[in-house]
Amino acid sequence: METYMIFRDLAIILISAKLCGLAAAKLKAPQVVGEIIAGLLIGPSILGLVQQTELISGMAEIGVVLLMFFAGLQTSLKDLMRTGWKALLIACSGVFVPLAGGYLLYCCYYGFAPTGSGQFYSALFTGVIMTATSVSITVASLQELGYLKSETGTTIMSAAIIDDVIGIIVLTFVVGMKDPDSKPSAVIISTVLFFAAAVVFGVITYKIFKILDKKYPHTRRIPILGFVLAFAMAYAAERFFGIADITGAYVAGIILCSIDDSEYIARKVDINSYMLFAPVFFASIGLKTSIDDMTPALLIFSILFVIVALVTKVIGCGAISRLLGFHSLDSLKIGVGMMTRGEVALIVAQKGLQVQMIESKYFSAVILLILVSSVITPVILKMLYQKKE
Amino acid sequence: METYMIFRDLAIILISAKLCGLAAAKLKAPQVVGEIIAGLLIGPSILGLVQQTELISGMAEIGVVLLMFFAGLQTSLKDLMRTGWKALLIACSGVFVPLAGGYLLYCCYYGFAPTGSGQFYSALFTGVIMTATSVSITVASLQELGYLKSETGTTIMSAAIIDDVIGIIVLTFVVGMKDPDSKPSAVIISTVLFFAAAVVFGVITYKIFKILDKKYPHTRRIPILGFVLAFAMAYAAERFFGIADITGAYVAGIILCSIDDSEYIARKVDINSYMLFAPVFFASIGLKTSIDDMTPALLIFSILFVIVALVTKVIGCGAISRLLGFHSLDSLKIGVGMMTRGEVALIVAQKGLQVQMIESKYFSAVILLILVSSVITPVILKMLYQKKE
Repeated sequence: METYMIFRDLAIILISAKLCGLAAAKLKAPQVVGEIIAGLLIGPSILGLVQQTELISGMAEIGVVLLMFFAGLQTSLKDLMRTGWKALLIACSGVFVPLAGGYLLYCCYYGFAPTGSGQFYSALFTGVIMTATSVSITVASLQELGYLKSETGTTIMSAAIIDDVIGIIVLTFVVGMKDPDSKPSAVIISTVLFFAAAVVFGVITYKIFKILDKKYPHTRRIPILGFVLAFAMAYAAERFFGIADITGAYVAGIILCSIDDSEYIARKVDINSYMLFAPVFFASIGLKTSIDDMTPALLIFSILFVIVALVTKVIGCGAISRLLGFHSLDSLKIGVGMMTRGEVALIVAQKGLQVQMIESKYFSAVILLILVSSVITPVILKMLYQKKE
Repeated sequence: METYMIFRDLAIILISAKLCGLAAAKLKAPQVVGEIIAGLLIGPSILGLVQQTELISGMAEIGVVLLMFFAGLQTSLKDLMRTGWKALLIACSGVFVPLAGGYLLYCCYYGFAPTGSGQFYSALFTGVIMTATSVSITVASLQELGYLKSETGTTIMSAAIIDDVIGIIVLTFVVGMKDPDSKPSAVIISTVLFFAAAVVFGVITYKIFKILDKKYPHTRRIPILGFVLAFAMAYAAERFFGIADITGAYVAGIILCSIDDSEYIARKVDINSYMLFAPVFFASIGLKTSIDDMTPALLIFSILFVIVALVTKVIGCGAISRLLGFHSLDSLKIGVGMMTRGEVALIVAQKGLQVQMIESKYFSAVILLILVSSVITPVILKMLYQKKE
């Protein structure tokens, strides 16, 4: 590929994302929805103007990490502590209800199979794919609406981070059921180690940043070192602990959320994000979608898959929130905020393909889930947050 | 490659670039030098921590375009007009003196050859590689020193943009001498067409931006549309007119340099640039350098190649500047500012390889030229600009 094609792709992505974003805002929908639709429009399914390249997918990855780092920076550590145990219960329920729902859907559609058979694992894995919440779109929506730091916003963020960990543990258990090489106990240990290491490393890093920030306030080195921390923790989480990179970036944000210049760092992250990386990320979701090799049977299954995945997440997280004392409207906000799925669901699906638990044709169902949840969640969230209590 | 490796690479690039940049600043050298040395340190030649990937080279390309767009935004159109004809003469002399120098160097080292022979073309092409100035590093240095908008700064920028065009015409002529398919007249026509189109399109775009800027001052859409313009013109210049992408981005900056929010756009470009893209670009220059398959004879040739390329550019641009009435010190500044070579020299070399005029082993000489000129130009420029007149 000629290098100048990069600029053609970026120009098309930015202008279409901005125009569709503004159109969405005109229609009272969040801009994020417009940006995803822009990706769908310019992608291979409709106009075919832009293809997914290594650069675009790489920039999309950076965009996700920047969004999560920004979310971490905006976190109030006090609020996270306060909502901690509630978030844990919400996350647990939000993992296990969809897990059961996915399993039952597959069994009802293709028939129940004896434990240990290939079809049993396919059914179980269908549930596993449904577990992973990916809140980057919720984060962007809440940020746009101004509710990222609200109680429900913080609860969603906290639940999502715990959800990620539980989801990975469940994945490892299920994969481990078939493959004797993978040890679930090792995963639990590495997860505990990650958070233990994050606390120790976090306290030290926080103190270093405090000193640097006092000595060189409002200088470029502070946000640049912030970026370094976010990227390094994204890498370390996934490389050394098997935790998703976005979790690492989010934790990096939390480490820095209490220093004096956290708002200064956040502003630099935000500018980098909204000028280039976030539009590329949202457009790339649309780009990934292709409407090929879709049989009627698979289409029906995919639609059911999407409905079950969304409803079970809303019920799983919403019902327990209600039980924990949240208002009905707030419980619904939490359930809806948790129902977005993203690249983690795709990574999980890829893992299932690797260990031969699912077939590649189910990828389109996952992509449909990501797309639908990405498009409808911001719309519903906006409606819910604008509703009078 | 696992996607999390992206973050490892970025973290290493950013931290090493910042540390080496700060060390360079401590030693009174421009930070840019430190950032290039950082790339050399972490690259395959020394520590081997980071490899050139499609993402890194793509981000480096975006970095170059952002730097040129920023330079264009900082341009004073009045000054460009005033220095126009001087810049033209400086550019011409700065192309033809190195062209002759490179030809003579090759002939002296490997022996004169009859016109039309393979060796004759190799000699001629050695000269062609030396013609292309790449001022992005000069721009970054002048910006850091605060002299980008000075008379010498504007002259360098104007001469470099004209140099680019003349260099491409020379390249096409030389390639055309061997290949009957390539028509030099067509290239001249497309070049004229590009600048004619840029003027017409520029006036219209300027008016549209003026209206948008009045209606939505200081909104995100203004800098985002600025990015779109920069990327679109970088693409269009190279795709439809065969002009370097950086020229397109620079012209995009010039189109917007007189609107009210040009400083607002420039600030967003700058933040995107210094937080991520510029460090990646400068580090990638160091990354490209490998010290393999270097024979003593080739090493000596490479060193002579670098010396001739630098000296002929300084003489070519400096002498004519002196004749045009600049002070001696200012003439030297212009000569030195024009002597940096960058990715355009590599692209020219690639073209020479394609049409079998040079061998791939001479690539290391070109990389050495880029590296040496990138490292010493900022140092010399800083010395010259801090000298009392």
